[in-house]
Amino acid sequence: MQKIFNPQSVAIIGASEKEGKIGNILIKNIKPKNKNRKSKLKIFPVNPKGRKIEGLKVYSSVLDIAEEVDLAVIAVPAKFVNQVVEECAWRETPIKNIIIISAGFGEIGGEGLKRKKGLKDLIKKYKLNVLGPNCLGIINASEDINLSFAKANITEGGIGLISQSGAFITSMIDVAESEQFGFSLIASLGNKLNINENDLLDYYVKDPETKIIAMYLENISDGKKFQTKLKRIAKIKPVIIIKAGNSQKTKEAIQSHTGSLAGESVVIQTVVKDAGGILVDNLEDFVSIIKVLNNFKVSKIQTTGKKEGLVIVTNAGGPGVITTDLTESYGLKLFEFNKKERVALKKKLPEESSVNNPIDLIGDAREDRYQIVLDYLKDIKGIKGVLAIVTPQAQTPIKKIVENIAEYNKKMPFPTFPIVIGGEAKDEAEKVAGSNGINNFEFPVVLIRALKKIGKWNIPATVLVKQAKGEKSDRISRQEYRTLLSYKESEKLAKEFKLNILPAKYPDNEDDLKNFIKKLKLPIVMKVDSPNIIHKNVKNGVAVGLNTVKKVEEEFRRFQKDFPGEKILIQHQVENGMEIILGLKRDTSFGLVLIIGLGGITTEILDEKILLVGNITNVKIKDKLKKSKLYKILKKEKINIDKLVEQAGRLFELGMLDEKIIEVDVNPIFLYKHKDPVIVDFKIMKISQRGSS
Amino acid sequence: MQKIFNPQSVAIIGASEKEGKIGNILIKNIKPKNKNRKSKLKIFPVNPKGRKIEGLKVYSSVLDIAEEVDLAVIAVPAKFVNQVVEECAWRETPIKNIIIISAGFGEIGGEGLKRKKGLKDLIKKYKLNVLGPNCLGIINASEDINLSFAKANITEGGIGLISQSGAFITSMIDVAESEQFGFSLIASLGNKLNINENDLLDYYVKDPETKIIAMYLENISDGKKFQTKLKRIAKIKPVIIIKAGNSQKTKEAIQSHTGSLAGESVVIQTVVKDAGGILVDNLEDFVSIIKVLNNFKVSKIQTTGKKEGLVIVTNAGGPGVITTDLTESYGLKLFEFNKKERVALKKKLPEESSVNNPIDLIGDAREDRYQIVLDYLKDIKGIKGVLAIVTPQAQTPIKKIVENIAEYNKKMPFPTFPIVIGGEAKDEAEKVAGSNGINNFEFPVVLIRALKKIGKWNIPATVLVKQAKGEKSDRISRQEYRTLLSYKESEKLAKEFKLNILPAKYPDNEDDLKNFIKKLKLPIVMKVDSPNIIHKNVKNGVAVGLNTVKKVEEEFRRFQKDFPGEKILIQHQVENGMEIILGLKRDTSFGLVLIIGLGGITTEILDEKILLVGNITNVKIKDKLKKSKLYKILKKEKINIDKLVEQAGRLFELGMLDEKIIEVDVNPIFLYKHKDPVIVDFKIMKISQRGSS
Repeated sequence: MQKIFNPQSVAIIGASEKEGKIGNILIKNIKPKNKNRKSKLKIFPVNPKGRKIEGLKVYSSVLDIAEEVDLAVIAVPAKFVNQVVEECAWRETPIKNIIIISAGFGEIGGEGLKRKKGLKDLIKKYKLNVLGPNCLGIINASEDINLSFAKANITEGGIGLISQSGAFITSMIDVAESEQFGFSLIASLGNKLNINENDLLDYYVKDPETKIIAMYLENISDGKKFQTKLKRIAKIKPVIIIKAGNSQKTKEAIQSHTGSLAGESVVIQTVVKDAGGILVDNLEDFVSIIKVLNNFKVSKIQTTGKKEGLVIVTNAGGPGVITTDLTESYGLKLFEFNKKERVALKKKLPEESSVNNPIDLIGDAREDRYQIVLDYLKDIKGIKGVLAIVTPQAQTPIKKIVENIAEYNKKMPFPTFPIVIGGEAKDEAEKVAGSNGINNFEFPVVLIRALKKIGKWNIPATVLVKQAKGEKSDRISRQEYRTLLSYKESEKLAKEFKLNILPAKYPDNEDDLKNFIKKLKLPIVMKVDSPNIIHKNVKNGVAVGLNTVKKVEEEFRRFQKDFPGEKILIQHQVENGMEIILGLKRDTSFGLVLIIGLGGITTEILDEKILLVGNITNVKIKDKLKKSKLYKILKKEKINIDKLVEQAGRLFELGMLDEKIIEVDVNPIFLYKHKDPVIVDFKIMKISQRGSS
Repeated sequence: MQKIFNPQSVAIIGASEKEGKIGNILIKNIKPKNKNRKSKLKIFPVNPKGRKIEGLKVYSSVLDIAEEVDLAVIAVPAKFVNQVVEECAWRETPIKNIIIISAGFGEIGGEGLKRKKGLKDLIKKYKLNVLGPNCLGIINASEDINLSFAKANITEGGIGLISQSGAFITSMIDVAESEQFGFSLIASLGNKLNINENDLLDYYVKDPETKIIAMYLENISDGKKFQTKLKRIAKIKPVIIIKAGNSQKTKEAIQSHTGSLAGESVVIQTVVKDAGGILVDNLEDFVSIIKVLNNFKVSKIQTTGKKEGLVIVTNAGGPGVITTDLTESYGLKLFEFNKKERVALKKKLPEESSVNNPIDLIGDAREDRYQIVLDYLKDIKGIKGVLAIVTPQAQTPIKKIVENIAEYNKKMPFPTFPIVIGGEAKDEAEKVAGSNGINNFEFPVVLIRALKKIGKWNIPATVLVKQAKGEKSDRISRQEYRTLLSYKESEKLAKEFKLNILPAKYPDNEDDLKNFIKKLKLPIVMKVDSPNIIHKNVKNGVAVGLNTVKKVEEEFRRFQKDFPGEKILIQHQVENGMEIILGLKRDTSFGLVLIIGLGGITTEILDEKILLVGNITNVKIKDKLKKSKLYKILKKEKINIDKLVEQAGRLFELGMLDEKIIEVDVNPIFLYKHKDPVIVDFKIMKISQRGSS
């Protein structure tokens, strides 16, 4: 592979003096761009017509070149290719490494297929290394070697590009110019008759100039090898992959659930993600991830503890708020400053500034204010990165701010990303960033998507759980504002509105209990009915499946012991139906909202919430329900939705009754094929002062 | 409101001659940019110091202005504002319309709150219309009136912007310049003490220059009014909204399922979507949607029938394929050409081009080739838009192609979007597009996201269903390549690998049946066991809950009649457990893939697929399972996963046995709390020729 990417001598077969011909572009492209190109590359143009091209002697055949030749680049018409290849092999010192630019093989069918077969045989017979056919060639930008018919001038940099599409390469070269990154190696795979992505990965990972491997693939030549290789290589260098051409394949007939669960695109996702690579589906993400990984110290970021996350610094409220929302909705964590840190930072900044996260420096911020913040942040542990939003206000010194940020990226342990938004300001920022070795991001969302994909800024699952638990304890302390009605109270209201609530009894003693069991019939469910115990399950405040009188009595005694002074309720345990949640919520802006969703274990996994806002009628409920996934499920289970609609409508009416009702949770209402729905649990939350109800 | 956006006379209170002061910027900004400004606006600078500013006479108080004044713009320090407002009201001809630029009210607390209270009282007392305080002012670009301290020169155009953040406005003005769109009206809402978004919506919808209403909101002043208004207005003009500040609110304690299902952000989504508005969460989408709606004939697109969709035209394979994948993954429909159309188009294009969708014009395409395609497309019914991808190849005439596309947008019934990718080419394209009244999109994904959000290009649900049905009939015709083993055959293999498959019996006659019922015990399930009937349910090939011998016998007779010659199997009907699907699939690139997922009605709604690819061991299965949502659910239900892991491992071994096994579908395997899992149905798909097994 060394001789393909860094040959000492190359024959350009099909070299041409005719402007615009590939054979001519090749000869022009291979000229040194730097006068002091390290490589002492010898070039042998080959063309039966002979003469001279661009001052170089032309050989009429590779057989005429007396010296050793490391590499041949073939750009003759397809029908002559195999003959030329054979000539390469026939030489006294055979040319074993060959790049075939020419198209007209397998991809055109017919004659092409025959040529493909012939070429394959030659490769095998003479043990050749062939890149292509039907490719753009290679570029070794670090060594100033361009053996392709892409652009002549390629910016040098750390990206090693492997592409199954030539046009993808030319587009990327163009994008790189404006987005300010450069390449080490570029290779066009073409038809992958011999050399494929696996071979190139081996070379790229060893190449010292290549920091990041970026690939565009349409199919994978040897999946198992690729998987093994990727696992190893992704630990050494970041590998970013666009795998295109999934949609055609997903259209293939699918004969089973398994088939539909494991479509091609899902398999490649699994392979790449498990191996530690980064898979994207579009060019924008591809480019932004390259920008992040190429110029920022992402590798230095370590997950050290819980107090960690990103910091947003901004000179504009709006964009700061949008970015905060986005970090959250993409599951990235924001750093939480403690009070000491906030006070210390506040002292250094003007009165009107805000030192939460985002840190708002106010519209008149100049470079010094960004500097103060970054100086302060650099010693705080747990900061994983700074998103520095700069909007062009009256006197915002874009250039100085971006230059400063570039400096900080050199000395800080975490990356600081400039996000200069809008027009001229952005153009200026891009230029300044590029010449200072970093990149600008015009839109926060593009950077955030890149960070998410790279995955180092994600909220660890444990932290999420911790937060959720923290919230729970908050809730209890807020009891003074919100009161949960007892089941008995809720039941009363529900009955008034003709909601099918499951009747309950409230035994005070064992005599009551016996009496009630007879009325309700076994099996029995027992619950604590207390506004103080919201999550009954957590505290063993629910007992189900009590199918003998003895069991009910035993549980009753335990409840009396475990929950002294609390009301205990019993209900007949109805047959499980389809679990649905109904709910009401009073939104501060829009008033009463009606919610319908699947209940049970599925609540957590169904990404559908049916919401109705505003003037809600049964017709509207039904219309909206009919457009939902839930409806499909109900239909499949042959459950009529009219009864559900009716109950939902009544629930809404109940909510309309009293402005103090801020949340109602019907969880669940059981639906049945041949029976009316039954509400099994019912909670009403009201606003009120402590002590009142 | 007319007097705020288009006054005949305005007092600038706090006007200043000091460079850089807001009072000075205001005076400079209000000067006409066009010499022939329609508005004969009279300007009265007010400052206690008097003298002259920018050649205008300065009044020491509004009380000194003898003439009528439509509007006052106040930019004095906060502590003087209320006094100045009162002076406006005290005048012989009171000034009722006031824009308060000054900050220092509710947003700073303390003193500010007192001022807020005072100002509120004044508004009520004198019936004033007040925009602000703490705002940037307004701009009426159509009338060349800039009463803000944003930039002086605003490009005129069709966007009416309403923003609760001043910085958002300055950013948008800057972005608009480079992205080539302009504004009609701009208003900064500030603290919304009096005039709010609802009032402005009324004015914007009537403004003839405003084609699109674009809003940035952090909170909504009167939700119900907003909802009603939006419903009406979104039918007249497109309304695009960024609602920011959701993340803070979602952090509020949530006391019930309902609460968590209906977070603030979900409510606003519902409201805007139901009303026909477009809600986005980031600036990039905001801008790209504006670009699409502003300059392309989106409104003319109508959903007419089934044969409709988007067309992708490209001069580069790779980007074409990526874009095709994206349209599909975003649920946008591609137009399907029929054979006649393909043949006709092919005749007009070079041999190597491809006339599917995408239409690939090949790298050497010049403007004429794009022209040929667009000419041809313009008469085909059902095309809803063209995505014209242009990558900069050796001789691609970017300017001509974009100019052509602009021309076609004038005469075609659908929009054609130029997507010129990369660097200089993109810069050129943006300029050319802008000066020809359209916009360029650098990355296909950005345009596709915009189209998706706008929603006119979505695949209608009915079409999706049709396609799915089409696929089903395809499947049957492919039977010659894939064979479904009988349950009996599958059962045998499963037993060999110690899979807990539910035993089945295959009664040939009623005597067998009676005998088997005794062995298996009631209730009984009966199924047709035929490779010809894959979806048994569809054809009544399954009977469940047969709980008397008589019922089993009756069904048996029906089966014999309905499925003559087919094997019938019976099983004991086990108690329903947690339904899980296990599966194997042989991927062409990566070999055997193991899939684990939730079964039953939840398969369709759980967006999780647990896939294992490569060398699969029980340890790996368990590790991956433990990271899944499914695991959380199993844990909650107190189901031990070891047995599931073991069965999955055995299934994998079964797949390793025989390369011809290409799919295995264990659907479902029931899991229980205190019992071993049971496989209830088991399908093996093998590749084979018709007739063999």
